[in-house]
Amino acid sequence: MKFTKMHGLGNDFVVVAEFSSVPEGISELAQQVCDRHFGIGADGLVLVLPHEQADFAMRIFNADGTEAEQCGNAVRCVAKYVYDKGLTDRPEVLLETRIGIQRLQLFTEAGQVTQVTVDMGEPILTAEKIPTTAASERVVNHQVTVADGEFPVTAVSMGNPHAVIFLSDLATVNLHQTGPQIETHPFFPRKTNVEFVQVNADDDVTMHVWERGCGETLACGSGACAVVVAGVLTGKTSRETTVHLKGGDLRIEWREADNRVYMTGPSVIVFEGDF
Amino acid sequence: MKFTKMHGLGNDFVVVAEFSSVPEGISELAQQVCDRHFGIGADGLVLVLPHEQADFAMRIFNADGTEAEQCGNAVRCVAKYVYDKGLTDRPEVLLETRIGIQRLQLFTEAGQVTQVTVDMGEPILTAEKIPTTAASERVVNHQVTVADGEFPVTAVSMGNPHAVIFLSDLATVNLHQTGPQIETHPFFPRKTNVEFVQVNADDDVTMHVWERGCGETLACGSGACAVVVAGVLTGKTSRETTVHLKGGDLRIEWREADNRVYMTGPSVIVFEGDF
Repeated sequence: MKFTKMHGLGNDFVVVAEFSSVPEGISELAQQVCDRHFGIGADGLVLVLPHEQADFAMRIFNADGTEAEQCGNAVRCVAKYVYDKGLTDRPEVLLETRIGIQRLQLFTEAGQVTQVTVDMGEPILTAEKIPTTAASERVVNHQVTVADGEFPVTAVSMGNPHAVIFLSDLATVNLHQTGPQIETHPFFPRKTNVEFVQVNADDDVTMHVWERGCGETLACGSGACAVVVAGVLTGKTSRETTVHLKGGDLRIEWREADNRVYMTGPSVIVFEGDF
Repeated sequence: MKFTKMHGLGNDFVVVAEFSSVPEGISELAQQVCDRHFGIGADGLVLVLPHEQADFAMRIFNADGTEAEQCGNAVRCVAKYVYDKGLTDRPEVLLETRIGIQRLQLFTEAGQVTQVTVDMGEPILTAEKIPTTAASERVVNHQVTVADGEFPVTAVSMGNPHAVIFLSDLATVNLHQTGPQIETHPFFPRKTNVEFVQVNADDDVTMHVWERGCGETLACGSGACAVVVAGVLTGKTSRETTVHLKGGDLRIEWREADNRVYMTGPSVIVFEGDF
């Protein structure tokens, strides 16, 4: 099986385009391929498939064999893959994912994709739908108390829940200790992703993320989007802001015209292989 | 750079044979290649090089960029590599490593190597040389007391120190809790690898290993050798014993004729790549 190993901010994928539909035994294949000692090693297996209404379709399978609904980092990898491999020559790609057809904008240099803009949809701000147990309509700078202290939480859903906490200095928080305390706080009945954010300028922030059910990760695209939405709601950032994550930078825009969040970031081909 | 991804019992390596000597910047290259998110991902980078006195030479660089002296799992991978790729057609290979020239025996099926026997050298049993602080000449079933209780330790060096502990049931010990307690006990002035072992039959044991400075691993070749030496010293195993590790099985022989320990096990090619 020919594959291309790619990553978006260190969130890494084995990309395979040789199937015309999802093959039998995909769950076992994903587990085998993603194993970092006995297999190729990746966070997920991404299939690029043909599609009638869109230019391409994609499906993502996690290292545990389950299917993921969507992943902004993987979408950027697929955009680079189809362009750099010559499967398309247009700067806009329609990609069918489990959450519908996405319109991707490609920025190229010398015939190769360097950055991709992904439409991440409209944020959900209603407290009950995020979900949280708040009595108020929205959750903005709501004080949540855990063992490590009291933290001002702004809650945003980008399809998944996020608790965004602005701090004057990221060094003051122990992510691995405080992260899980917020993640599992009863205020979030379906748990939550947690972002600690330091504002460097009104269009430049640094975030550390504790992902629900998986702990610290290098990059979380939906988390970066939630951070900028929370930044606008609290008056801490402008609508177009660069977010520095451990794995690299994303440019996030919460567009006033259509209320949608656009994420722009890089994707990289690491190597080609035959498994 | 063309490479072959291989593993020996899950201990995985990027094997490269396109250099004639160790290139400049090898430390940075190893770090880049071994990175599991931004690079290829491996425990180590292995260079297969030409050599005048031996058939081949090998050098191993760890994921942190430092050079390793020797690794039985990597040596088995190199043996399979040079035979399966047609660089040699003989069932015995002389391989120069940092600890001298090693004679490897290759077992093949349908033109491919399935198992390799590696001469792991003579065990060191002198308490002071292992090193331990014991007053006795040897350390056999010596009671070592840590926070989790008292454990009967048999100490063996295979070039690196091992504390072998036989238990009636592996499920009774918490490797991640007790392992580091033994590893750092002052009885071992240079710390120690720790093997917990359950005897299934006099020629069949299961071991869990806590490696000095790196924690639980899937397989530790020198640890499996130490286990069988300790098994013979304590009367629990015979000189030829199969050791089940988390990553797979090794056959260990402590040969009476020459006092040397021979390790036989598999190595696997996972995929070919171009970085």
